[in-house]
Amino acid sequence: MQFLSDNAAAVHPRVWDAMRAADAPQPPYDNDALSQALDAAFAELFGRPCAVLWVATGTAANCLALATMVAPHSGVICHREAHIETDECGAPGFYTHGAKLLLAEGEGAKLAVDSVAAVLSGIRGDVHQVQPSAVSVTQASEYGRAYTPAEMAALSAFVKQRGLKFHVDGARFGNAVAHLGCTPWEACAGADALSFGCVKNGGMSAEALVFFDEGLADLARLRRKRAGHLQSKGRFMAAQILAMLEGGLWLENARAANAAAQEIVASAQDRLLHPVEANEIFLRLSLDERAALRAQGFSFYDWGDDAARFVTAWNSDPTYVSALSCAIAAL
Amino acid sequence: MQFLSDNAAAVHPRVWDAMRAADAPQPPYDNDALSQALDAAFAELFGRPCAVLWVATGTAANCLALATMVAPHSGVICHREAHIETDECGAPGFYTHGAKLLLAEGEGAKLAVDSVAAVLSGIRGDVHQVQPSAVSVTQASEYGRAYTPAEMAALSAFVKQRGLKFHVDGARFGNAVAHLGCTPWEACAGADALSFGCVKNGGMSAEALVFFDEGLADLARLRRKRAGHLQSKGRFMAAQILAMLEGGLWLENARAANAAAQEIVASAQDRLLHPVEANEIFLRLSLDERAALRAQGFSFYDWGDDAARFVTAWNSDPTYVSALSCAIAAL
Amino acid sequence: MQFLSDNAAAVHPRVWDAMRAADAPQPPYDNDALSQALDAAFAELFGRPCAVLWVATGTAANCLALATMVAPHSGVICHREAHIETDECGAPGFYTHGAKLLLAEGEGAKLAVDSVAAVLSGIRGDVHQVQPSAVSVTQASEYGRAYTPAEMAALSAFVKQRGLKFHVDGARFGNAVAHLGCTPWEACAGADALSFGCVKNGGMSAEALVFFDEGLADLARLRRKRAGHLQSKGRFMAAQILAMLEGGLWLENARAANAAAQEIVASAQDRLLHPVEANEIFLRLSLDERAALRAQGFSFYDWGDDAARFVTAWNSDPTYVSALSCAIAAL
Amino acid sequence: MQFLSDNAAAVHPRVWDAMRAADAPQPPYDNDALSQALDAAFAELFGRPCAVLWVATGTAANCLALATMVAPHSGVICHREAHIETDECGAPGFYTHGAKLLLAEGEGAKLAVDSVAAVLSGIRGDVHQVQPSAVSVTQASEYGRAYTPAEMAALSAFVKQRGLKFHVDGARFGNAVAHLGCTPWEACAGADALSFGCVKNGGMSAEALVFFDEGLADLARLRRKRAGHLQSKGRFMAAQILAMLEGGLWLENARAANAAAQEIVASAQDRLLHPVEANEIFLRLSLDERAALRAQGFSFYDWGDDAARFVTAWNSDPTYVSALSCAIAAL
Repeated sequence: MQFLSDNAAAVHPRVWDAMRAADAPQPPYDNDALSQALDAAFAELFGRPCAVLWVATGTAANCLALATMVAPHSGVICHREAHIETDECGAPGFYTHGAKLLLAEGEGAKLAVDSVAAVLSGIRGDVHQVQPSAVSVTQASEYGRAYTPAEMAALSAFVKQRGLKFHVDGARFGNAVAHLGCTPWEACAGADALSFGCVKNGGMSAEALVFFDEGLADLARLRRKRAGHLQSKGRFMAAQILAMLEGGLWLENARAANAAAQEIVASAQDRLLHPVEANEIFLRLSLDERAALRAQGFSFYDWGDDAARFVTAWNSDPTYVSALSCAIAAL
Repeated sequence: MQFLSDNAAAVHPRVWDAMRAADAPQPPYDNDALSQALDAAFAELFGRPCAVLWVATGTAANCLALATMVAPHSGVICHREAHIETDECGAPGFYTHGAKLLLAEGEGAKLAVDSVAAVLSGIRGDVHQVQPSAVSVTQASEYGRAYTPAEMAALSAFVKQRGLKFHVDGARFGNAVAHLGCTPWEACAGADALSFGCVKNGGMSAEALVFFDEGLADLARLRRKRAGHLQSKGRFMAAQILAMLEGGLWLENARAANAAAQEIVASAQDRLLHPVEANEIFLRLSLDERAALRAQGFSFYDWGDDAARFVTAWNSDPTYVSALSCAIAAL
Repeated sequence: MQFLSDNAAAVHPRVWDAMRAADAPQPPYDNDALSQALDAAFAELFGRPCAVLWVATGTAANCLALATMVAPHSGVICHREAHIETDECGAPGFYTHGAKLLLAEGEGAKLAVDSVAAVLSGIRGDVHQVQPSAVSVTQASEYGRAYTPAEMAALSAFVKQRGLKFHVDGARFGNAVAHLGCTPWEACAGADALSFGCVKNGGMSAEALVFFDEGLADLARLRRKRAGHLQSKGRFMAAQILAMLEGGLWLENARAANAAAQEIVASAQDRLLHPVEANEIFLRLSLDERAALRAQGFSFYDWGDDAARFVTAWNSDPTYVSALSCAIAAL
Repeated sequence: MQFLSDNAAAVHPRVWDAMRAADAPQPPYDNDALSQALDAAFAELFGRPCAVLWVATGTAANCLALATMVAPHSGVICHREAHIETDECGAPGFYTHGAKLLLAEGEGAKLAVDSVAAVLSGIRGDVHQVQPSAVSVTQASEYGRAYTPAEMAALSAFVKQRGLKFHVDGARFGNAVAHLGCTPWEACAGADALSFGCVKNGGMSAEALVFFDEGLADLARLRRKRAGHLQSKGRFMAAQILAMLEGGLWLENARAANAAAQEIVASAQDRLLHPVEANEIFLRLSLDERAALRAQGFSFYDWGDDAARFVTAWNSDPTYVSALSCAIAAL
């Protein structure tokens, strides 16, 4: 009964079907009809023009986006616990040639106007200090918190007023939108680029890097090739992404994962470290309690000394979810 | 009737089957049973211990290999027409942080002891000149030429005697082995790392980066993550590669592509720019002749002003191959 | 009456004399007799073998040292307020190709075993997180605090026990040694490399990068050239450094600067933000008090909202120092 | 009797005087009055607005210029024997984060419209090949050849028409201008940036990086700091450069070096590998002839197997020059 992560969950049958259907003769790289269809599909979803590239991982999507936004001598403001800071083996430093991540504070791993302003005010505008060129946020955040449309709009307005680019890491973007009940654009309003996650949400090996600032996309295409991320049979990447969009599968899957999370939350209200606004649940659990759950067959990650993280997925087994909910209630 | 490249050919049914079979719960990244099985599978194939990583593209495989072999201030000797020099958008410069490709000459895009020695003799051993740390060759070469076991052994012995690392780009390694009729190891004898190509040979999105110098593999694992190439559902990458090895599918596919090439060669002996030792055919063809072939429905790349390149694949349609052979004979 | 910094102070007459004397025919780069004499001169000073390179700035010295110690995918533990983190425009990221500075806490901008251990304990040993390869400290620290020989020995022992390299930024190393009254080696015991500052201490344009781990020096020589820091008339760099060592001028100058600082401290004990153990003085001073001092002709930097920084130099005018001391007392 | 290089020649007395005069209290970095005077001084010299930075070496000047002109995934067209290609330990790769030097041919190490056009025509405009962003030439060239005003104008016009930036490495710019008898601007007409050499021409440790495209200069200022080239006592750098301009010292010194070269040429017309248009002389000389010269006390570099390079300087001893001329005539 696995609640370790959604990152290795099964591939959705409709994604499989789309991949099989893509195995017809096509031009290589992103010259196939499926890859060429991405821009229009996302333009429809977000209600505005955009330019879309497939890449194999969220790390690549995030870092390619940042590489188009900052010079090597510049910086990116992000949360102290952002994935790009803590869990990508320094990939942003690689892709940006040493640009600096400038760390901001914020409850629930979320940034706000105040926390970004605090970082900016501490930087002298001279050649001795790294000058920021972009801000990156995660929707939903690393603690499963969603930015409301109002929060997102206020933050992006501030960021742009300061002349900075705005990147949204949407590894679990679907879960945030499913929770918020807003339009996709409202959930990332003002973004110049969005890493639109598919792999954790029923895909296999393709994330969509969506540029609302289309001028950045050509640069990203060069950098993608240079990073070894331009697959010759790209049609299979595009097929996965289009299948996720088709009929709103991405939202359907995210809702399923969120619902599973809420079933667990129902029995653990007094243990929550963070409100659950996506599919990640952080619970206060003693060493003994965790041992007890593991003895019953549940797997999950420790989170520090007295807590644990549970993650549900689009295909979390309802039986297991109920079992976990009961087991926590019974602790 | 497409002879542009093998890089967008269909995925082999056995690869599809292996991928579908891999869609069971497994730990993420390369902790799944399939990824863990790669070392042993290649050790058996090559008759010696090795450490194997999957990556999505040949560019990534080549560049990760080189990144473990050279410091940023060092150089890699390669052929003037090597793929890493001409067609990877500077990816080696990215992955190695600016190491220099030091260009050598050689017939058929092949290096030899003499051509490498010529480069070495032109470099003063001071801090003003870039000092080489590695040599990279392509098997089969960019002109579809295979290094014989004797050539490979002589070259690698020389390279190592000079204290350099040895990398083999095997984007079409199977085609070379199929032509040579030697063991896989003989076709890359002395390699510290081999980019073992699958995508052009019936795979979808996985190449095997094989380290015979196993000490380099741990470094490559860090760099792979840092480059955004560590896929969370890596089991689908491993599945592709294992399917290629299973029952010698890689060699079977390569033989099919080579045989198709030879059928074309049979009618074009007097037009050959290079002996055909793999699945690439370079033919002298006038502008009119190329137009004539295209008018009959054949697609292929021009190669300079008076030649063309044809590439066969594991699944080249026998009817098309025969048709092309006849059409050339009839010019 | 300038107390802004020691970084633009006059050049000591003996440094001038040495430079003039160096203007005789000599081989270029570091092949001249003066450059060749550096290793022996520092070996005598530190009582152990070392390899020494001149470079033009502290930034270059620090970054070249770090570049020999960490791979691009690795990290350097340093204090949150270390100069390499805050004031070098991301130079460490440039020289190390994106290695990450991992920030530690510590009173007075000093690290200790505990604070380094705290950083280490927060890092999982997997490919997702940046693994540290080195620790860098500043002697004296950015707040003018000196590490005692015992502190330095304990820290370096811990660092090495963890398999990390140890770098000491000694932009004001002389001031620390002058304060501690210990041997030069005791003030950096265990260092693999020391940036031995001269420019702030009476030099013009040369810092000594001293490698006690001599194996790193050859690498640094290549990286120095690659960074455009190998001056062809290097003899003038070496001459400055040798003049600083000759007759202990470096210590004499540092003592003068420290003494000037102590004269100011004497009248400001109740205002000190940090004990003054070198030539930097951080004082609580209200907006009005700072205005009053400036009205009397003193120049210095604000330090946040209610403090100021004063820096003395080897040639601080005694009249000005006394005047400042009196002026503070009179506030 | 040293004819190895001009790179270690003595410092001119007027440069010394200017440096001594600069040792008065001044703000640090480039905020002093001398550094601030550079723009105007060069604007007058070149008859057009420009922004000027001092740096310590020609390598740094060249690489900082290129770093402002090309993205990491772009390329710089230069001659196969350009200094940036052959003798800077890969420094351009470091400063540009892996941009590629695209090598062009040309007699006397000079580029021309044809040779640049040949490189351009070989590059497909897709993401697989490195796209050039700049062209770099050396005035005078690595073989001591000067571009005439007409050649320079034709080349720069072509370069700009193709949308590329234009950099001139002027390590021996003075020698070229002295030979050509044209205005300084005519000798680099169309340059976006010029590395104006001083060190080989009587300076000590300062080169002027002159941006005629002033928009690039701010970027260069950040990169200079990031590269550790922003010296705190920058006034001594500015002083050297201003002294070189004052009264046309740079041209006077270059003329002296050129005249010395011509005296040698006079006795070696039939041995010349290249016309001598600056202060470098390449002569066919057998092994025995070189040994004979060395036995008479002359030092110089071999140039391949049957030639030698002699370099004169602003202060070449007339006695030695005459002696060399006679010795060659007597061979």
